[in-house]
Order: sequence, then C-alpha cells, then structure tokens
Amino acid sequence: MSKTNPGNFFEDYYLGQRLVHATPRTVTVGDRALYGALYPSRFALQSSDEFARACGLPASPLDDLAAFHVVFGKTVPDISLNAVANLGYAEGRFVRLVYPGDTLATTSEVIGMRENSSGKTGVVWVRSTGVNQHGQTVIEYCRWAMVRKRDAGSKAPEPVVPELAGAVAATDLVIPEGLDFSNYDKVLAGSPDYWDDYQPGEKIDHVDGCMLEEAEHMMATRLWQNTARVHFDPAARGGEPRLIYGGHIISMARALSFNGLGNAQLIAGINGGTHAAPCFAGDTVYAWSEVLDKAITSVPSVGALRLRLVAVKNAPAGEMILRGEDGKYAPGVVLDFDYWALLPRR
Amino acid sequence: MSKTNPGNFFEDYYLGQRLVHATPRTVTVGDRALYGALYPSRFALQSSDEFARACGLPASPLDDLAAFHVVFGKTVPDISLNAVANLGYAEGRFVRLVYPGDTLATTSEVIGMRENSSGKTGVVWVRSTGVNQHGQTVIEYCRWAMVRKRDAGSKAPEPVVPELAGAVAATDLVIPEGLDFSNYDKVLAGSPDYWDDYQPGEKIDHVDGCMLEEAEHMMATRLWQNTARVHFDPAARGGEPRLIYGGHIISMARALSFNGLGNAQLIAGINGGTHAAPCFAGDTVYAWSEVLDKAITSVPSVGALRLRLVAVKNAPAGEMILRGEDGKYAPGVVLDFDYWALLPRR
Amino acid sequence: MSKTNPGNFFEDYYLGQRLVHATPRTVTVGDRALYGALYPSRFALQSSDEFARACGLPASPLDDLAAFHVVFGKTVPDISLNAVANLGYAEGRFVRLVYPGDTLATTSEVIGMRENSSGKTGVVWVRSTGVNQHGQTVIEYCRWAMVRKRDAGSKAPEPVVPELAGAVAATDLVIPEGLDFSNYDKVLAGSPDYWDDYQPGEKIDHVDGCMLEEAEHMMATRLWQNTARVHFDPAARGGEPRLIYGGHIISMARALSFNGLGNAQLIAGINGGTHAAPCFAGDTVYAWSEVLDKAITSVPSVGALRLRLVAVKNAPAGEMILRGEDGKYAPGVVLDFDYWALLPRR
Repeated sequence: MSKTNPGNFFEDYYLGQRLVHATPRTVTVGDRALYGALYPSRFALQSSDEFARACGLPASPLDDLAAFHVVFGKTVPDISLNAVANLGYAEGRFVRLVYPGDTLATTSEVIGMRENSSGKTGVVWVRSTGVNQHGQTVIEYCRWAMVRKRDAGSKAPEPVVPELAGAVAATDLVIPEGLDFSNYDKVLAGSPDYWDDYQPGEKIDHVDGCMLEEAEHMMATRLWQNTARVHFDPAARGGEPRLIYGGHIISMARALSFNGLGNAQLIAGINGGTHAAPCFAGDTVYAWSEVLDKAITSVPSVGALRLRLVAVKNAPAGEMILRGEDGKYAPGVVLDFDYWALLPRR
Repeated sequence: MSKTNPGNFFEDYYLGQRLVHATPRTVTVGDRALYGALYPSRFALQSSDEFARACGLPASPLDDLAAFHVVFGKTVPDISLNAVANLGYAEGRFVRLVYPGDTLATTSEVIGMRENSSGKTGVVWVRSTGVNQHGQTVIEYCRWAMVRKRDAGSKAPEPVVPELAGAVAATDLVIPEGLDFSNYDKVLAGSPDYWDDYQPGEKIDHVDGCMLEEAEHMMATRLWQNTARVHFDPAARGGEPRLIYGGHIISMARALSFNGLGNAQLIAGINGGTHAAPCFAGDTVYAWSEVLDKAITSVPSVGALRLRLVAVKNAPAGEMILRGEDGKYAPGVVLDFDYWALLPRR
Repeated sequence: MSKTNPGNFFEDYYLGQRLVHATPRTVTVGDRALYGALYPSRFALQSSDEFARACGLPASPLDDLAAFHVVFGKTVPDISLNAVANLGYAEGRFVRLVYPGDTLATTSEVIGMRENSSGKTGVVWVRSTGVNQHGQTVIEYCRWAMVRKRDAGSKAPEPVVPELAGAVAATDLVIPEGLDFSNYDKVLAGSPDYWDDYQPGEKIDHVDGCMLEEAEHMMATRLWQNTARVHFDPAARGGEPRLIYGGHIISMARALSFNGLGNAQLIAGINGGTHAAPCFAGDTVYAWSEVLDKAITSVPSVGALRLRLVAVKNAPAGEMILRGEDGKYAPGVVLDFDYWALLPRR
C-alpha cells in the first residue's frame, strides 16, 4: 500500500468528525523577519517590541495573518488535497496573540456536508481551531471547500448546511489581554487617523502596488507548510503557471493597506473572504478598502472597524468598483476580504 | 601580491595536512525559518519545540542538512575554488544535534592524494569535521574532489588512496543524546508508517515536485557561506546559466521525501552521494526513495533505515529507474544520495 | 481628505525642522539570517558570536549596513516620496553597535535648503539620527535630496547650504565599546592581511560577482521598510523595470569586498556616496576598492582604513578605472562609496 498521503475524499468525512492535523510548528523571530521581507508591512505593533509594550503587550506579536497562515497550512494535507475549490471563510476570530516561541497546532471539526447534484463532488464545512503550546485557542475560523468524491456511485450523506454568521458580532471580538491604546503614539505609528476618523461607506485607495515573484510566493507558502502541489509544480497544473496561494494575496493586500489604514494595528475577526480570480508571478497587486461598519469594544481606547479589503491586479484601484452591473466581480478584482481591525480611539 | 583568495591547487596539499577553515558561524532560529521557506520540509522534530521535547530533546534542532551545509560551506574557499568536480562523499556521521545559538566551525585533514594521468589535475581526499562552540564534533564526513594543478610540470606526490567504507555501519551511527520515540505521536508527525513498516527493496515515489528559482538557490547557497562563483555569476560559466549548488538539490529532495517518509525524522549518516547531472533555475525536481537496509539501534524505540534518495528533474519519478542497461544514470536523474535515517519503532 | 501619505514637498520643510519618523523596528537574528541569505557576507565578527566575544564584544552585532538600512528606511516616507534624486551622503558615523533585540527609531533635522533655479524643485539637507531603545545614538549621517515643489509659484526660502566635511576625521570615528583585536584570529577570519598591509593608493579587484534578482532586491528593501514605489511597481516607472534600491548595491558590493578585505570587520564612518547609475534585475555586480587613507585609532589593536568601494555592473572590474578623461564615471560604474573600516593591527 502506498505510504504517500492520498488526501481525504468526500466519502472520508462525516458530521462531527474531528481531524487532528499534522506538524505542530514553533514560530520565531525568523518568521517575523521573513514576513517583513515578503510583505511591505509597517504596522508598528508588529514591528517594534517597544511600541507593543507601550500598548500594554509583553512584546511585539507575530503578524495576525502569519499566525493565520500557519494555522491554515496544517489543514491543507487533510482538507485541500482533493479539493476543487476553496469556497469561503466565516466566523474567524483572533482569540489570542501569537508570540515568537509559541508552538501552534490545528484541529478541525466537520460541521456540514452536502453532496453536489453532479454526484462527483461535495461541499464540506469545517471549523478549524489553532492552539498554542498551552492548549489555548489562538485562532478559530470556518471554511468550506468543494471536495472530490472517490467514487461517483457512493451514497450521498444526509445534507447538513451549517448556519454561519454573515459577520462576527462586534461584541464577540476578543481584545488581546492588556491591549490599551490610551498612550498611543500616532507619529511613531505613521498615521494621523484614529478610529474616530473613519466612517462607514468611506473608501480608501492604498496607492502602492507590488509585482509578484515566483520565489517570493513559494517561500511564503512553504513557510506556512502549505504544500499543495499547484503552488510549486507547473506539471500539477498541466504545464500552466504555478497558482499563487490565496493567502499570499491577503497578506500582500493587508500590508499595502498600511498606506491609509496605518493605525489598523490588529485583525480581530474574519467575516468572509473570496478569492475572486487567481494570481500568478508577474501580476502587480494593488489594494483598496471600504469601511463597512464600526463599533466600540470592551476596552475604551480600542475601537473596531469592519473593513472590506479588495485586491486588484495589473491596474491601480481607480474608481474602486467591486462588482459590475451584472453583479459579478469587476475585472481585475482578485480578493474580497471582509474583516474586523482594531484601532486606537481618540 | 594579491590580497584575494587564489584557492589551493593540487600542489598545495600534502598528506596529513590540517586545514582550519574560515568563518565560524552562529546558527539561529533565523536560519531555521529560512530553511523552512526554501524547502518544503515538514518533519515534526525540526518544526516544533514541543514535539522535540516529547521525543526527549531539549528543543527542536536545526535541520541536519542545514547543519551539514554550514559545515560544508566553510570548506569551499580552501577545497573547491580550483576544483573541477566534486567526486564523492563517504563516512558521513551526524554525531551531535545542532541547536539555534550554536556556533559551528570546520577543519579538514588531507587523507589521500593521487595525481591524474593527464598531469593537469589530481584527486584530493579530505575528512572534514564540524564542531560546535564547545569543541564537540557535530558532523564528520569524507569527500574527494578533482583539483587543478598550478603547474602541469610539478612532480606528482606518492599516490595514497584511502580505504573508505561503502556504508557507515549501523553500529557506528550515533543516536542523539536523550532521543526516545517511546511516546511518538504519529498523528502530529503526519505519517502512519513506522520503521517496522519499511522493507529493503521497497521503493516510494514522493509524488510532489518543485520548480527551482534563481533567487532561492542563491539565497540558500549564500546562507551557508558557500561563495563559489559558478552559483552566482554567469560570467564564471562563460555566460551559461548559474549552476545550482548540489546541496540545494539534496535539501529539496529530502524535504519532498516527507510525503512517504514522514517519520524519517533525523539523518544519522551519509554513506555516499553523487550529483549525477547539474540543475538550473527552471528545472522542476521530483524525488523517489529506495529502502536499502534496516537496522536496530542502541535505543529500543529508534530504528535506522538505509535509504537511497534519488532526485530527478523535469518529469515525475515514474518507474523509479536509477540506471539504464548501460549502467549509466537514467535520463533525468540528478542526485543519488545514500543515507541512514532514524525512525520510531512500534 | 485623503488618508494616504502624500509625502512632503519642498514647501513643507523649514530650517531647524525636526522630523520624527514612523515605525520603530526591533531587529533580530531573523534579520541577521536574511542579511546573510541576501548578500555573500563572510565577515567573521557578524557571523559568529564566539568570534565577536574573542574581540571583546558581548555577541555578534548586526551588520553595520543592515542597521544603516533600517535607520535610512524610516526616513523614506518623509523625505523621499517626492524626491527626484538622492544627491549625496556625508558625515556618517557608526556610533554604537546594534544587536539582535535592539529597537531602532530615526529622527531627522533639516540643516539646509536651497530652491533650484527652475523654481520647480529644491534641495533639502537633513541630518538623520538612528537611536536604540535606550535613546542612544547608533548611527548618524547627512544626506541631501532634490525634492519637488508643490507649487512652482510659492516663494523660495532663504538659501542655506550647510558646510559638510569632505570626510569624517579619523579622530571622530567611534571605536565600539570593548572592541579589541589583540587576540585576533586571522585564520578563522579568512584573510591574512592586517591594517598594516594596506597602503594608500592600493587597489583591490574583489573578483567575485553576483547577478541581481527581482525577488532578492524587493525582499531586502521591504526588510528595511523602505516602501518607495519605484522598487516594487513597474507602473510607478511608466512600465519600465523596477529600480533597485541603492542600498542593495552598497550591501552587495561590501559583501563582495570580503575577498581582499576580509579583515575590514566594521564600518565606522561614511564619508560620501554616489549612486552613479541605476541597477536592475539581471545586472551582475562586481566590486573593487581603493585605499584612500589610513589612521590609527584610540584603541592600539584597531586601525582605520579609508576605502573607496566601487561597484560596477555587467563586466568585471578590469582596470579599476573610476572616471573617464571627461571626469565622468566610467561606463559600468554604479556606486562610488567612500567609507572608513576598522581592521586589526599587527
């Protein structure tokens, strides 16, 4: 019998199944340096231990998305190997900051299943949980993917579609222990705009752009131990160019958003996300944001903004149009990412 | 007189000569992160401090091959600068694990010399030893290279060809202090197969592949302070593409071998190695392994597998054929690497 | 009003103005590893904690140029965004070594201003100071740049051109606390040549070369949080290739200079620097040096060499000619960098 991982097929999942994913990983300042080399990130909280301490934290945490990618990467061998498409994210919460030296591991629970009418694929919903070496949850999120069946003739399971929130309620956001923006230094942070200065409906063109390189997206994707073949081996795509891991685009767009959202220091929740089109080396990524909502939090100095982060490719953001009149994503849109960020209040 | 390093020519070596190589180097978690970004490695022992502690180690060690490359890199300015070809390796032993914070240095002893019949080159055999900051040996190995003579007319030395073992005896393998696989977690490790499950003669196609990039092989090679010009400067190759450091291919193939050998946590010995053909950016590397031998060790929970790791390029491993009927390496084979790995026993 | 950074125009500066730059940054062993992966650096003091301790330091410091790039990068959003050209450097001093764990921040003072006759641009002189988390100066230097005016009609300020030293006086160089080369190990350092062996007028061809890659220069430039668009987005250059950050060339040339100046362990001062021509991915960089001056220092075992480091591209250094008969830089010259290095004395 083959000793290589065949991945799971639709028939291998069952409701309530608990998957313990492989390869726990200790994150370090080496990961922080690489994250800073791969993405033009300048958020002060993740850049400076001193700045983080002035905000009530013990030290500068790992970038939230770096932690997310590590947690996500572990699910790939069990969830994504026979997936046709990653369909969506919901109910993502960043429960605890991750610091250099922490060891992350991930488990998932199957919370929904529905065979597609074709009989060849099905949709699997999982809730994944990343924990640190103390067993404390650091990140949790749901995602659903379309997965191949091993055998088109196998019997369909009872369909169960979970009810997932359209957005994480502001009251469910976790403010990291100790975080306090009372003595926030906006000059060192590099942006004069506080939570108070952003209004729902406001759009921001982040101006800057970055061309994508093969070496960079592969290094990033390996760093998260996401080893899906399509990112590394053109033969896995019939000779077509390697597909860039969607998370690489999320991180790139989030880093570009510093220019206009420089005080959006932390990600507290992921409400949803769609990879609207694939990206390849040679594409140039730009980003724009729309303020969707705003909320106070349990900490008076900390406010939450619900933001839509949109990445576009090969032409600047321009009019910042998400969808055409037909309701489809406008040309060039590659990412539609809906998240909660934490900012200082005046 | 020139202040740049002219390298050693065949005439500069003598039997019993001891070479103290330059540039001791402190390895850190930064090297660990870069190793993980450059190679798709997922061996749990090198990924997680917690997993390593559960196996009796104080923390997660540096990848064995990262340590090997650091030790090897130091020999390049003294051994390889005027080398025509790296001919072979033997009697490699990993004597002590390397941890972030350790400082490595390398010395070599000339153990054999033989002028070639052309009178223009000779073969030099050296035994190189990497030590840590406590003077403890971490890695030792022999290699031999064909080196240019400065002057074809210079007198040939008495030929001395050392007798090198065809393979490190299993009884000579060093099991790292404290290593104990009694409580091994195969789920977190990502592979259900123990030492007991592999049999001599068994072949494993590791399935995954990775295209090579200029930026990646140069970053790797510089990281090991291996500054042979052919890897960086096309002019050093008459305008031909930069030659990829052979160690980059060893590391890539070893990382790819996780898929099928996920519990082969540590390298304990190098029996031999041949770079059968050169690699260049744009090549896609695949790997397959053959189990050559197996042995118990001094620690009951730890078994040793002797493995042949074969890297091929630009076509999947397919039939896993090493040599054609003419005895030559089959087309596409770029690496034939014979080593001992340590795995948990049931 | 836009929330993105419009940068400063000539009219926004005034004499005596103090700019507090954003994004303090904690440097780590992750940065050290990346520096070693991006540049072929082999200076033993930055490579080995043990070697550094044998030279009287508490540990291996971050490469001087890595520290310089971090300090410099912070000034980019405030100084360079509307700059037409970076005109020069002077009076650079490395006042204190930077160690992993230090947090760097930068302030600048405007020390000169002069509108150009066109009325469209002006020259701004600033003195920038990098400090660590204890408020201690680590690096200080002057630079001047040509900056766009917002409005050609705005009134010119009183011209003030600062008097800057042609070179840092040897007596003003700061020898790092504790540095002592009395027990210097030249074998481990990899070079037999001491301060005593170099003479003014001497030229050294560093032989080695390295081809530049997009992924590498972008990773380096992001690592220093220098986010000038021209380095990342071809559209910011009208579709022309991305411009490589000049500091990438300084670091590459300095690392190449190891071959011939292997004991030039530390940079103590920057006397001047000119980026004579731009570099792009695909260019191959070589380097040569000329000894301009030499001086003893306050520490008997430490000598200072004033060096001109010249980087050339796409052809080896050859005759090492800096300028043609017309006084212009010779074809291929891309960098003319005048600095003080510290070496061991016999």
